[in-house]
Amino acid sequence: MPLGEFELIQRYFAQVSEASSDASVALGVGDDCALLNLPEGQQLAVSIDTLVEGTHFLPDIQPEQLADRLMGSTVSDLAAMGARPAWLTLALTLPQTDADWLKRFSSQLGIRCQEYSIALIGGDTTRGPLALSAQVHGFVPQGKGLCRHGAKPGDIICVSGNLGDSRGGLEGLLNGFANETHAEYLLKRFYSPVPRIGLGQSLVGSASSCVDISDGLLSDLAHILKASGNLGARLQIEALPISSQLVDTYGEQQAQQWALTGGEDFELCFTLPPEHLALIPSLPTSVAVIGKVTEESELSLFLRGEACEIAGSGYDHFHQS
Amino acid sequence: MPLGEFELIQRYFAQVSEASSDASVALGVGDDCALLNLPEGQQLAVSIDTLVEGTHFLPDIQPEQLADRLMGSTVSDLAAMGARPAWLTLALTLPQTDADWLKRFSSQLGIRCQEYSIALIGGDTTRGPLALSAQVHGFVPQGKGLCRHGAKPGDIICVSGNLGDSRGGLEGLLNGFANETHAEYLLKRFYSPVPRIGLGQSLVGSASSCVDISDGLLSDLAHILKASGNLGARLQIEALPISSQLVDTYGEQQAQQWALTGGEDFELCFTLPPEHLALIPSLPTSVAVIGKVTEESELSLFLRGEACEIAGSGYDHFHQS
Repeated sequence: MPLGEFELIQRYFAQVSEASSDASVALGVGDDCALLNLPEGQQLAVSIDTLVEGTHFLPDIQPEQLADRLMGSTVSDLAAMGARPAWLTLALTLPQTDADWLKRFSSQLGIRCQEYSIALIGGDTTRGPLALSAQVHGFVPQGKGLCRHGAKPGDIICVSGNLGDSRGGLEGLLNGFANETHAEYLLKRFYSPVPRIGLGQSLVGSASSCVDISDGLLSDLAHILKASGNLGARLQIEALPISSQLVDTYGEQQAQQWALTGGEDFELCFTLPPEHLALIPSLPTSVAVIGKVTEESELSLFLRGEACEIAGSGYDHFHQS
Repeated sequence: MPLGEFELIQRYFAQVSEASSDASVALGVGDDCALLNLPEGQQLAVSIDTLVEGTHFLPDIQPEQLADRLMGSTVSDLAAMGARPAWLTLALTLPQTDADWLKRFSSQLGIRCQEYSIALIGGDTTRGPLALSAQVHGFVPQGKGLCRHGAKPGDIICVSGNLGDSRGGLEGLLNGFANETHAEYLLKRFYSPVPRIGLGQSLVGSASSCVDISDGLLSDLAHILKASGNLGARLQIEALPISSQLVDTYGEQQAQQWALTGGEDFELCFTLPPEHLALIPSLPTSVAVIGKVTEESELSLFLRGEACEIAGSGYDHFHQS
């Protein structure tokens, strides 16, 4: 006999909600609204994202992988604003009630809520094609959020971690890995993106702009440049941080291409006024300096000092067929 | 040529966002997060809801009707907490980019945002089967939110407006109206629920509990009774507020049945300590007294003094086949 909607929510998400709740949550899951307290001196940062089966993930994804992907990608938006994660709401649309699936999904969701210190405070469960909308809420000191619009000519362009790995993992999923040696690493980078929460908060007060790389470096950097008054940039391709695993699996040129245009790495791309360059070694995540913001509104690529063509831009859902 | 995702969001929702924005919105649509200010002394009330084609609405729904239904049903959760609407986020999943549909939907969304004084502050647009997740955010004076758990034995049970109309409209849509005289009225009650925002705020400090009627009166009142410590209630069926249009179209007995169990009227059901009864005539919406909270945990129905059977409870998505 199928579980009722209320029992279902109760059974699988109440535990996650209770375990993740803190003093900012005056009333959590189970009423018409959650009631929440914003600490004094803080602004609220919010972002909502949807993952749809067939568009954002393949039908054979495991529930744990889906929870990881959802949490990594949504919390990443908070990281990109320099916000401290606080609250999560989840609207879950399921084709049927599958107790095993729900148990595994909610259990992994709970693990990530703990890890990112974010409380599940509300949600909705409906019947329909598998899709998830999650809204994340975070705290950022009043007026200190890392926006896209603050870059200035002369600022240094930085990125965290390695780029292109997620695209390499997806390639293996879609077309198989030619070389299986690093398949596990690349799949993990695709399924379990790590939101750069600590890094984002460390940049508050120093970075002049910040974005997380969801659509691809070129595409997301272009958002910063446009929002900052149609500025341009010069990027050094050989300075892009690329994992040896990606190069070993697909070769250097392909790896560089994906580092520029592959989406969903969820690393941070940010600009630093030159006087803050000394901050880099003390940041909690490895950061590479990859170029400079320029006055003229053009994004130019250089490989060992030679100008090169931009081969493609990021991923845009509605341009896909 | 299809529009890109960013241009699409930009074109149709930027105007709604700008027109609806106010001083509490430090940064609106267009960055990784919106940045928001919560007025001093207020708690934040939040609720997320999803509407899925085929589950919550029929494929031939007009975009204006969908916008009305979404806004009415989601803002109703704020009304039920006594909250003042503040911010809206919208995750929109569309099978394709349809400029006419988007123009009509966003235009009607903008009209409702203005009417309910709620600012569109963020969203996500993805490709997939038609579905909408909306999160509403409102302000409620610290500690004064109208929760489900405050009812006490002896409290008076009240409901706003008329009950059952929405179910009557749905019946006409599904099986045709036997009598077309009031079809327009009933369809409007189904498609354009009116969130009782003013009423909810007027009840802050007086009502001991409150819920909006989304699943049906019996089902939603049961949430109050359970949350308040497994209390019971005695309801007078002849006291249920029912429109003459519903009775004229479907007869008195069917109308009463739907007033008890029909979902999605989005009227408020609340409990008032007897000493606050005098408040009723001054409330901004008509309110009917329909019964009383009791100590023993049973929900009993009376028709002209005679006890009667409960014929069914509310709507529960996962019990449907």
